[in-house]
Amino acid sequence: MKHIETIREMQSLALGWKRSGLSIALVPTMGALHAGHVSLIKCACQSVQLSGKVVVSIYVNPLQFSPNEDLAKYPRDLQKDMRICQEAGADAVFTPTDSLMYPFEEKSGDPRLKHSTYAVEETLTQSMEGVARPTHFKGVTTIVAKLFNIVLPDYAAFGNKDFQQAAVIQRMVRDLNFPVQIIRAPIIREDDGLALSSRNIYLSTEERKSALCLNQAIKKAKEKTSKDGLPAEELKLELKTFIENNPNTKVDYIEFFNPETLSPVSLVSTGTQIALAVFVGKTRLIDNDTL
Amino acid sequence: MKHIETIREMQSLALGWKRSGLSIALVPTMGALHAGHVSLIKCACQSVQLSGKVVVSIYVNPLQFSPNEDLAKYPRDLQKDMRICQEAGADAVFTPTDSLMYPFEEKSGDPRLKHSTYAVEETLTQSMEGVARPTHFKGVTTIVAKLFNIVLPDYAAFGNKDFQQAAVIQRMVRDLNFPVQIIRAPIIREDDGLALSSRNIYLSTEERKSALCLNQAIKKAKEKTSKDGLPAEELKLELKTFIENNPNTKVDYIEFFNPETLSPVSLVSTGTQIALAVFVGKTRLIDNDTL
Repeated sequence: MKHIETIREMQSLALGWKRSGLSIALVPTMGALHAGHVSLIKCACQSVQLSGKVVVSIYVNPLQFSPNEDLAKYPRDLQKDMRICQEAGADAVFTPTDSLMYPFEEKSGDPRLKHSTYAVEETLTQSMEGVARPTHFKGVTTIVAKLFNIVLPDYAAFGNKDFQQAAVIQRMVRDLNFPVQIIRAPIIREDDGLALSSRNIYLSTEERKSALCLNQAIKKAKEKTSKDGLPAEELKLELKTFIENNPNTKVDYIEFFNPETLSPVSLVSTGTQIALAVFVGKTRLIDNDTL
Repeated sequence: MKHIETIREMQSLALGWKRSGLSIALVPTMGALHAGHVSLIKCACQSVQLSGKVVVSIYVNPLQFSPNEDLAKYPRDLQKDMRICQEAGADAVFTPTDSLMYPFEEKSGDPRLKHSTYAVEETLTQSMEGVARPTHFKGVTTIVAKLFNIVLPDYAAFGNKDFQQAAVIQRMVRDLNFPVQIIRAPIIREDDGLALSSRNIYLSTEERKSALCLNQAIKKAKEKTSKDGLPAEELKLELKTFIENNPNTKVDYIEFFNPETLSPVSLVSTGTQIALAVFVGKTRLIDNDTL
């Protein structure tokens, strides 16, 4: 497995692969890899089959964090991540630095030379994570556009744990005609139902117990959902009460929506998507599912 | 020479070329081709040499016109354009329709399915054409990003007649890491100095005479410019008076700036860039040069 640290090297490796007729699959990550990422890498391997190449990018993108978020303390363990990539079957790991990805931020005294171009999605980003984290998706779409142009993938794998993110990326690919097929992989969960997340390591033992309430709330919603519509506001209120009965929890949002347009629905029925964000202690967790 | 009318066909042709190791050069145009475009096509041919492929795209992009602009009457003559491309040495002409480039605008009843992703440059677009035409550059960067993803060029040629546009595209390529080398080709002029533009055909005989004032103003500025700084505001005023002494002319802007950062300068000296936009009758013309 190759370890690539510069944009130039990655781009010319990818161009070489392309010129040899090889397919490329990209798994963009922020590191702190877990079984969810392993499943993405395996999906990527399947998509390009034996002859193709799978690249895992590991980059904690500052542009998608707000100043009050956990950029500095976001977990980083490159050696462990590299082992996981190798075992999962990746052909290359791409680990650029901030000064390569946003080189003009530091070097230049002239603010007009700074990074100034963004990929921006203006519809699907206006709810949920886009409200809670106003600059988040601009950072996500921009870094993913950059990675697509650097790694030149035919396929790119995104986990449905970040459901809205996957929908936004798919929309960007559709609208800007990126020659990339998006693979959306299912959420991987612990045995007790907690969705895997690099941020789960922030949880204390007590909080880890409370964190189960996200998946439990989804299960509760599933039980109540049928073909007949159920008023979304009522169900929200019920789930909020259920969740906040657990110690140290605070609901950020619970939304019911159309999984393609992310358009909120007033009546919840079979096929409606639920997504929720809950603070457990200081840690913000998200989860979602189709009802 | 191939004539390609669909995105799918263009993208798979380009991928095929790439997989055969061929270089690709793109000349994005809105048609109504003239000697300026021919010079761009020839630059593109040189960049990919004998074995590579040159694609001319012809597409009048509605996204870069404001409602009050000349989208409907913009000159279109595909047969003539095709002849010009063939003679200049293009390998393919790509002529998508609006319903292929923005398919979700018309078809769907759901506004949330509409095109919603844009490439946006936020610094270099804040002056000159970006002020006069507030939505223009968002349309330009978005369509160029789309064309880059469809035609997969190694090189793309832009004329310096649209100096700010070329600078904005170059910035987008830098920031989003498009694997494309931008070729900036010099302005082509009529014998009497008028910069070639598809919009020159709008000019009456009288207006055609007045239109010379743009290039004459630039020449005047050049004569006055030396290593010693000249106050920009004074020179602007002098050029404005000179221009508006011609019948049917109205200055939109005259700017002096750093050619890389497009940062306005207060003192004009050798190496400063001048750009100007002037209404001649109802036709808005632009021109620029390095002093």
